[in-house]
Amino acid sequence: DHFIICDYSYKVENICKELKNEIKNCKIVLIANREENPVKETTGVHFIRGDSTKESVIEKANVQKASTVIVLADSAMDERLADAHSVLTTLAVRHMNPSCKIIAESLNPENIEHFRRAGANEIICTGEISGQLIFRSSIYNGLTQMLRELITNRFGNELYSGAVPDYLVNVEFSAALVKMQEKGAILLGIYRDNELYTNPAPDTVIRNGDKLVYIAKNTLF
Amino acid sequence: DHFIICDYSYKVENICKELKNEIKNCKIVLIANREENPVKETTGVHFIRGDSTKESVIEKANVQKASTVIVLADSAMDERLADAHSVLTTLAVRHMNPSCKIIAESLNPENIEHFRRAGANEIICTGEISGQLIFRSSIYNGLTQMLRELITNRFGNELYSGAVPDYLVNVEFSAALVKMQEKGAILLGIYRDNELYTNPAPDTVIRNGDKLVYIAKNTLF
Ligand SMILES: [Ca+2]
Ligand SMILES: [Ca+2]
Repeated sequence: DHFIICDYSYKVENICKELKNEIKNCKIVLIANREENPVKETTGVHFIRGDSTKESVIEKANVQKASTVIVLADSAMDERLADAHSVLTTLAVRHMNPSCKIIAESLNPENIEHFRRAGANEIICTGEISGQLIFRSSIYNGLTQMLRELITNRFGNELYSGAVPDYLVNVEFSAALVKMQEKGAILLGIYRDNELYTNPAPDTVIRNGDKLVYIAKNTLF
Repeated sequence: DHFIICDYSYKVENICKELKNEIKNCKIVLIANREENPVKETTGVHFIRGDSTKESVIEKANVQKASTVIVLADSAMDERLADAHSVLTTLAVRHMNPSCKIIAESLNPENIEHFRRAGANEIICTGEISGQLIFRSSIYNGLTQMLRELITNRFGNELYSGAVPDYLVNVEFSAALVKMQEKGAILLGIYRDNELYTNPAPDTVIRNGDKLVYIAKNTLF
């Protein structure tokens, strides 16, 4: 029931800090091909040295019992090699644990499909997202600030998703937008059967079992 | 009136493609410390070889006439060095062109203040944003998809900002939310005097001169 992070980049500290903030007694194991633990001792992360594509190495992290495995692009590797390495790690993890949640970082959007086939549940193409964000900021003002606010929980609002509460079942999207704003949230979309419907038609009816994606200062449901 | 991109990482191709899509006859100059042009010829980007922190090099890109300069973290550099190098480039660019828009990529959030002092107008901390996104995706479903949709213009909705149209001046935020949804957009916040007010109190009155941040399939205003 622990978290495993495979491979090191400067993002690891941030991710560990947030996980420990959000989840009580969160246990994190870091696997990295580094001589020494690249993360400060105070982070309270258990370090395993080795190649994360090897079953013998990930076994040491007790991968069979992990709830979530985060596979990051190794910052010590060439951009092109890092994704290939991460796909191999994803394959090995999925082979040893068919049910854990695997979140993989992909640098090149062309590799997203490889990660999916290897068994990743969520693939985050950080290279593409960063590039798009830089591009859009060069044309529109305030967008970077908005995104930074939405995805960091240090200040302001955050982006959340949660199961539809009873009072919103069978309600049209436009009416739900108004109801949620009265509670301090802005509804953005519906996540249904693994498909995301952002800003759907106003008369779209919310169903039991949907997840709602919204922004708010705190989770509403 | 051209764009300059300082330093190379795999993001450059993506950024150039989007700029050329969005702006007719967009002229882009890439400065990078690489033996050969790292970008495909077909991208139509003018390549200048050299160290982007040197005035003699950025002068060759006609920096005095540039409208926008994008300073990226060089992928060939150590993570820690890349930010320091980018701050020096920002300083040199600002010195030679006091009025252009400078968008800088920062890997470490601790360096944001250095970039600001050096004269950057927008600082995008891609390391922090990627880390947060990976963390949040490991806990909430659908958030990655939502963000990917919002910041790429390949499909679905996009995040936009634009000057308040007349029909929304002196209107309360909650009423504007409803009015904009009738036009197919979800209002997220107000950008006023360089401050962003995301999801403000429902009775916040929109003023002339504000910019509105919203999501929609196409720009509304
Ligand atoms: Ca926030
Ligand atoms: Ca989109």
